[in-house]
Amino acid sequence: MHRCQPPDAVVWPQNVEQVSQLAALCYGQGVPIIPFGTGTGLEGGVCAVQGGVCINLTHMDKILELNLEDFSVVVEPGVTHKALNTHLRDSGLWFPVDPGADASLCGMVATGASGTNAVRYGTMRENVLNLEVVLPGGELLHTAGLGRHFRKSAAGYNLTGLFVGSEGTLGLITAATLRLHPAPEATVVATCAFPSVQAAVDSTVHILQAAVPVARIEFLDDVTMDACNKHSQLNCSVAPTLFLEFHGSEQVLAEQLQRAEEITQDNGAFHFSSAKEAEERSRLWAARHSAWYAVLALRPGYKGYSTDVCVPISRLPEILVQTKEDLKAQGLTGAILGHVGDGNFHCLLLVDPEDPEELHRVMAFSELLGRRALALHGTCTGEHGIGLGKRQLLQEEVGAVGMETMRRLKAMLDPRGLMNPGKVL
Amino acid sequence: MHRCQPPDAVVWPQNVEQVSQLAALCYGQGVPIIPFGTGTGLEGGVCAVQGGVCINLTHMDKILELNLEDFSVVVEPGVTHKALNTHLRDSGLWFPVDPGADASLCGMVATGASGTNAVRYGTMRENVLNLEVVLPGGELLHTAGLGRHFRKSAAGYNLTGLFVGSEGTLGLITAATLRLHPAPEATVVATCAFPSVQAAVDSTVHILQAAVPVARIEFLDDVTMDACNKHSQLNCSVAPTLFLEFHGSEQVLAEQLQRAEEITQDNGAFHFSSAKEAEERSRLWAARHSAWYAVLALRPGYKGYSTDVCVPISRLPEILVQTKEDLKAQGLTGAILGHVGDGNFHCLLLVDPEDPEELHRVMAFSELLGRRALALHGTCTGEHGIGLGKRQLLQEEVGAVGMETMRRLKAMLDPRGLMNPGKVL
Repeated sequence: MHRCQPPDAVVWPQNVEQVSQLAALCYGQGVPIIPFGTGTGLEGGVCAVQGGVCINLTHMDKILELNLEDFSVVVEPGVTHKALNTHLRDSGLWFPVDPGADASLCGMVATGASGTNAVRYGTMRENVLNLEVVLPGGELLHTAGLGRHFRKSAAGYNLTGLFVGSEGTLGLITAATLRLHPAPEATVVATCAFPSVQAAVDSTVHILQAAVPVARIEFLDDVTMDACNKHSQLNCSVAPTLFLEFHGSEQVLAEQLQRAEEITQDNGAFHFSSAKEAEERSRLWAARHSAWYAVLALRPGYKGYSTDVCVPISRLPEILVQTKEDLKAQGLTGAILGHVGDGNFHCLLLVDPEDPEELHRVMAFSELLGRRALALHGTCTGEHGIGLGKRQLLQEEVGAVGMETMRRLKAMLDPRGLMNPGKVL
Repeated sequence: MHRCQPPDAVVWPQNVEQVSQLAALCYGQGVPIIPFGTGTGLEGGVCAVQGGVCINLTHMDKILELNLEDFSVVVEPGVTHKALNTHLRDSGLWFPVDPGADASLCGMVATGASGTNAVRYGTMRENVLNLEVVLPGGELLHTAGLGRHFRKSAAGYNLTGLFVGSEGTLGLITAATLRLHPAPEATVVATCAFPSVQAAVDSTVHILQAAVPVARIEFLDDVTMDACNKHSQLNCSVAPTLFLEFHGSEQVLAEQLQRAEEITQDNGAFHFSSAKEAEERSRLWAARHSAWYAVLALRPGYKGYSTDVCVPISRLPEILVQTKEDLKAQGLTGAILGHVGDGNFHCLLLVDPEDPEELHRVMAFSELLGRRALALHGTCTGEHGIGLGKRQLLQEEVGAVGMETMRRLKAMLDPRGLMNPGKVL
């Protein structure tokens, strides 16, 4: 949705020393610096709005250190989460944060990514132990100290946390130490259809309150289900649906599944089925992860735009119902799906790229939705970030003192305003 | 261990407006400000090293808002974690972070507290959703925006994370929005004795690798066990011991217990027993939480000092063995216990307050231990904070650029250096 704005030059450094030299050179000459990973972000975070040098970090793609007993790994910025999990296969560990696209892990740090597994394993914020950062002037910062990979610390200010979600505006992340998790012994997936959005959300809250350690709990509305049925040859009901996943031993899974089924039936679910076999599970999640393309296929030639609000879970039903009404009132085609265990959902909007009026309506809808979320004590972005388009909403979200504090942080680390300019603030 | 250094005045504000007015007044007059909760911190965080005004926040002790469906609560700074959990009784939810002492929750935010449940539920860093902070000049900051209590966000810089663990040096925390968890349906505790420290730590790693979702896994060395036996009338083996706790349904607990027993036996454990009844469980944890007093009772009239390092779990056996040898070499009485699932342990040292030479040896021992942890890629403080005594170790831990970044953060938010001066930096 954000128009491509190319930089003046692209460079592919091979190591951190080169990144540091490049940063010092650009900064000294007053040239904007745009860090680039896989470019899979959705909020225009890599647009070179003021030109400058794009530092493409994909050639730095080594897994530097793996500590199985310590549940930690150190990766360079070109390593994607799929590449890491391929490397970890047979190790008994995995890295669960999965934003959908095969993003680079350091890019995921920069945007504070999360995705379907966050309800159980947390977002990037909870899974980064240390960062190597090239500061705008070229200095090298190790946010938790050089080579450290402890699980917790109370030593000084949380510099690691400051860079997670900073969207490339405070420095270039050249290595990340990540927390790994034990790979699940067994996995089972369930799908469950409901008569209403309210019933699906109530089931989610009850499952969480019952301490069922669900690994994924994804909501797909009727439009999304219809699109997925057609695109991925599913045969699901066209109704508000939950996709659930459970991780554990065979015995534990059976119990979790039974509890989830009881809870969903108590809330009026009219269909519940589960899949243990890897093939069937993959088919269901492939359909979920292809939902974007499935929805796009509803109107060939159209482009997609995704909203990304997150609200307290109890407010989900009202905002989902309102959103459906807004779509109808605006004459827009939109499908809703979301990480409902976190209160985060996306509305995938279809827009005719040749129709500026429709584009305008889509953007107005998105802004309205952002404000609805803010009014319900939510956030304008659960996981995509602020980027270019949500800067006004961020101001409304955090208020004048919050913005002033963020601006002072930016000015402190990037006094010349050259690190990924025009984003976030 | 830190000598009491009283402030020039103590004030007890009743509400955030008064805190704001007090902060503005003090700051304008160049008077140091020392925030005070329950005063249970161990690193001298409330010492008024430059005099000034102590702002005692204990009269602000209301639970402002409880959102059961959203798993969140808003508390004023005088609310302790026990008071919160008493309030939550019968709600089906609880707040798991428990540093041992009945500390105030906002004080726990300030020190980045954790404790026995952190291995499963995380530390304060993972359980704070929003903070109301009075900045040094009196301005009011809502780190995630006024009234917001979403579970995740990617909106701008992580201001909440910046204040967690800031030890009162960046502002006064006047309200915290915390994440609640479902109360466990059932609980079982196990104790397990080992022939060596290595066997106990190996068991811990294997239990974590097997994805057994242990809620607590605490290590107590032979000295601690001996002291607990005497002080709390236990009848445990005087050997390296693990106290474990599991949360879940009856069926899940039985399986977790069986797995833990198998793993510990594979590692040579010579005793494993479990307790389901609330009374027996309470007795065991009361003994664990009284370990400090039990160890103090070994040498009546002596004072205690606790170290607090944290290392990657794989390095625990060597540092524990080295620590035992150092104790012997220095002729010091010390007991070791720790949150071994996080790699964090404490050495409780006994010191004759009338013997300056012994006090000197204790401090030298503590510094040596801190450096040993740093050499093993660890941290000088897992949960107690830097306070007064670990500022030199912090410099060695995060390096010159890390320190410079922290100093600039401090100068940005507190340019006159009046917020809890002399701590952290």
